[in-house]
Amino acid sequence: MSAQSESLDAYLKARRELIAEDRGLRSDGAAIAHMSGLEELAEQNIRALRKKEIDNVWKAEHDAIPHVFPGMEFLTARGLIEKSEIFQLLKTMPKGALLHAHIDATVDVRTLLRLAEKEPALHIRIPTKLTLDNYTTVIPQFLALPKHQFVSGTIFGDSYVPDTWIRLQDARSSFPQKLGGEKGFDEWVIRSITINPTEAYVTHNTVEKIWQKFQSCFQAAYGLIHCETVYAGYLRESLLTAINDGISYAELRVTFLDKLMVDKNGELTLAHRDWLIIFESVVAGVKEELKAEGREDQFFGARLIYTTLRFISNEELREALDDCIALKQEFPHLIAGFDLVGDENVLKPLLDYIEPLLEFQQKTKELNLDIPFIFHAGETLGDGDSVDNNLYDALLLGTKRIGHGYSLVKHPHLMKICREQSICLEVCPISNEILRLTSSMPMHPLPILLNHGVPVTLNNDDPSIFGNFGLSYDFFQVLISSEVSGLMTLADIARRSFTYSTLEETQKAQAIALWEKHWKHFVEKVAAFKLDGA
Amino acid sequence: MSAQSESLDAYLKARRELIAEDRGLRSDGAAIAHMSGLEELAEQNIRALRKKEIDNVWKAEHDAIPHVFPGMEFLTARGLIEKSEIFQLLKTMPKGALLHAHIDATVDVRTLLRLAEKEPALHIRIPTKLTLDNYTTVIPQFLALPKHQFVSGTIFGDSYVPDTWIRLQDARSSFPQKLGGEKGFDEWVIRSITINPTEAYVTHNTVEKIWQKFQSCFQAAYGLIHCETVYAGYLRESLLTAINDGISYAELRVTFLDKLMVDKNGELTLAHRDWLIIFESVVAGVKEELKAEGREDQFFGARLIYTTLRFISNEELREALDDCIALKQEFPHLIAGFDLVGDENVLKPLLDYIEPLLEFQQKTKELNLDIPFIFHAGETLGDGDSVDNNLYDALLLGTKRIGHGYSLVKHPHLMKICREQSICLEVCPISNEILRLTSSMPMHPLPILLNHGVPVTLNNDDPSIFGNFGLSYDFFQVLISSEVSGLMTLADIARRSFTYSTLEETQKAQAIALWEKHWKHFVEKVAAFKLDGA
Repeated sequence: MSAQSESLDAYLKARRELIAEDRGLRSDGAAIAHMSGLEELAEQNIRALRKKEIDNVWKAEHDAIPHVFPGMEFLTARGLIEKSEIFQLLKTMPKGALLHAHIDATVDVRTLLRLAEKEPALHIRIPTKLTLDNYTTVIPQFLALPKHQFVSGTIFGDSYVPDTWIRLQDARSSFPQKLGGEKGFDEWVIRSITINPTEAYVTHNTVEKIWQKFQSCFQAAYGLIHCETVYAGYLRESLLTAINDGISYAELRVTFLDKLMVDKNGELTLAHRDWLIIFESVVAGVKEELKAEGREDQFFGARLIYTTLRFISNEELREALDDCIALKQEFPHLIAGFDLVGDENVLKPLLDYIEPLLEFQQKTKELNLDIPFIFHAGETLGDGDSVDNNLYDALLLGTKRIGHGYSLVKHPHLMKICREQSICLEVCPISNEILRLTSSMPMHPLPILLNHGVPVTLNNDDPSIFGNFGLSYDFFQVLISSEVSGLMTLADIARRSFTYSTLEETQKAQAIALWEKHWKHFVEKVAAFKLDGA
Repeated sequence: MSAQSESLDAYLKARRELIAEDRGLRSDGAAIAHMSGLEELAEQNIRALRKKEIDNVWKAEHDAIPHVFPGMEFLTARGLIEKSEIFQLLKTMPKGALLHAHIDATVDVRTLLRLAEKEPALHIRIPTKLTLDNYTTVIPQFLALPKHQFVSGTIFGDSYVPDTWIRLQDARSSFPQKLGGEKGFDEWVIRSITINPTEAYVTHNTVEKIWQKFQSCFQAAYGLIHCETVYAGYLRESLLTAINDGISYAELRVTFLDKLMVDKNGELTLAHRDWLIIFESVVAGVKEELKAEGREDQFFGARLIYTTLRFISNEELREALDDCIALKQEFPHLIAGFDLVGDENVLKPLLDYIEPLLEFQQKTKELNLDIPFIFHAGETLGDGDSVDNNLYDALLLGTKRIGHGYSLVKHPHLMKICREQSICLEVCPISNEILRLTSSMPMHPLPILLNHGVPVTLNNDDPSIFGNFGLSYDFFQVLISSEVSGLMTLADIARRSFTYSTLEETQKAQAIALWEKHWKHFVEKVAAFKLDGA
């Protein structure tokens, strides 16, 4: 061996050691070090498939899309993703727990419309007369009314009095043919409760502007969902959509801002405890349905995170916290934690609420209740502003997980705390991109978090608005835009998601055991996958 | 004090401590802790001015610009930035050392044209006949020729034979009036050597595509600059532009790929040592000019970083490294280091060149020559690809600084190495944004680097192509998009820039002493600044 090749060997050895040291904090290290033979094959297959697909799809020119690249804008890429072989495989992967999703934005809008349009009590109103010129920008509201208040009519044309309720079924059947009739009506409603590519990437292309559209989606959909007959069906669809994508457990955020929901008679009578009773019965029903299909091992259960909005007063927050305590006492197995939601960049910082939040901690301690905070924090591009600083308060208040934590990568000490105390970030890649925190996945901070050993889970946040149902889309975007992360990274994230849940230790072990069983089947399938031309 | 307010006080105390701990790695901590009274006033004034400007300018609606926000796309924002009071103040701030700029892209294109159009030997050629339809996409080349090869004529219309040289002065004076005549000619050339907002943000809106345009700017400008009579004037303008913006020392990257430059007779005779002789005489000339104006304390000097391109063979690299050694031996005070440049995402990784690079280190050691590597590395959105991995090789090869290091934030151990060994990142915020690594400053990783205590300098990279002459624009974009960083952060970055230079320790001390003097004057001015309405 010449002196030169000796030094080259020494160099290459030092290089391998440096890379190993640099990646030493990654949580997928152990899973990779202990891969089974089949896992190794599966990992190789996915990496080979990824390489092929990047060359053939994501680095190719496409007539209809100007700029295509791995991890590109989701709303533009969705059609291409759905044709991907990797995506088709990922759809059958067991995803673990879904820990960050807002329940009012989890069901496909067409399914929601199908449920809502069967309900004769639902009414619609708009703030202005609908015309050919304005109809794409007018946003409807919905509400179920008692029978004696039903109003027939049409919402289109001069006869409509702005802000008056008209029966949804009537409004739909009388929607003018020149706007597409009933189909046109549905498309018009769907437009108001989803974000389209032009909105995300052109007209509303800043965090501030897209949040305005985003919030109007929630407001428009609210009345469709919050009506007893629709609600139960909605929850069922929400769970089945998740389960059919391989999610076996969920902690879903529910906004308990309004005190009452409309019952099946169109009367505002259903209190929060009734919402929970409906939820509990839907969970039980879904379990039975699955059992009848021999799929009971695909669903471990679901809980709710009590949320209210970051614009209420301290006094209103005290009421909400007391309400949360009462619900936890009655439904200890259903209430997973407490959170404050809404646009952090515009609404109040956690620090404004510090007194009621500290009181709540004292109170739950005295009552021996375990209601962890699971705060949204740092969902921002700000550097040192009040939103970025929410991370300090979330952690000081002992948050169990952090919703988003997008700006956490700017905080070395907070990253250390999360790593050492196993506080996981509920990362929502596609949500962050559509809500313009990042322009695309390659700019997303997830690889920074992974390499620094900050615990993460992947989540879909608001799939009905973004179109990223289940977790396959988010998993795909993460996988396609990295050469470090692979199948074992996704597996590690999925497996650990239970660990960061609010399940009891024994429940976690059960849920993980079920996951392992499905993972084994999945690995067998991917290991046996034959690449074209291979 | 009630139990409750006690606990609130305890909370707020813990919060202050947590924030202090989290920001403990920032290098501006000492400067902030030891602010003079005037510095405190200046910092307050800048922060108040920033707040006012963000509200009045960067959060306002503007008719001509759809989305305005702090740190937005530079090419769209430039007009607004230039009207900013903060920007006007920053223009007079002493900026320290400029450690990352490619000399062929440092002079305003109009100035370059003014210099070039005076040179009768310069010729132009285009690869096709120029028409009204194609002229915006045709890219010219330039070359100085000896007198006996001069060709008169016009480049527009049917008479032009593609790929033949025509005298630049003729081509310009005969440029058709329907394309704007001489002014239209200049605009056409300028378009080929600069990036415009539509290219950066629409037609070439990916790293890969904008790099194609970026490189074609270099290719088009090359022949205009590399001609003895123009070159000296060009270097003078390059230095004066930097000095007039408060830069007092520079280490400029020069590409020594071509072996010869055209002399004043239009003959290819000037070898690399002649380039250095020209550079040395320009530096001396600029010093004399400044002295005559009583400004000699504004310029400490300039050096060159020898660069070649990442597409050459190992054998060609060996030749370049030997050439670099020979130049260092003859001009030890002028050669600062060695680098490989060009699009990392497309060209060869450092690992491909590892053998000649290791040999070079051995050779320079034997010759007792100090020629540090100052490598570009990690200028990418890739995660674990060969470009991202260049960071490992740059550090293993003992790079003195890292050019860009954009992906370093993904590497906890490498960040630690940079912090502990004072290896600074030459961060180029506006360059990164225009070359589409980040969509805007709020998505740029600079705050991550600052908070993790990774040493950084700020740099303009290629100001003639981007329009960010001096460092005021880059300083402005950093300042306006953070609420942590302030004037003392910029001061800390500027002051430390000398530390990361290749100057000897005594020279560093001298350069810093000069900087402190100018800083003192600047602080007096900013401290005395009266805000409108204050």
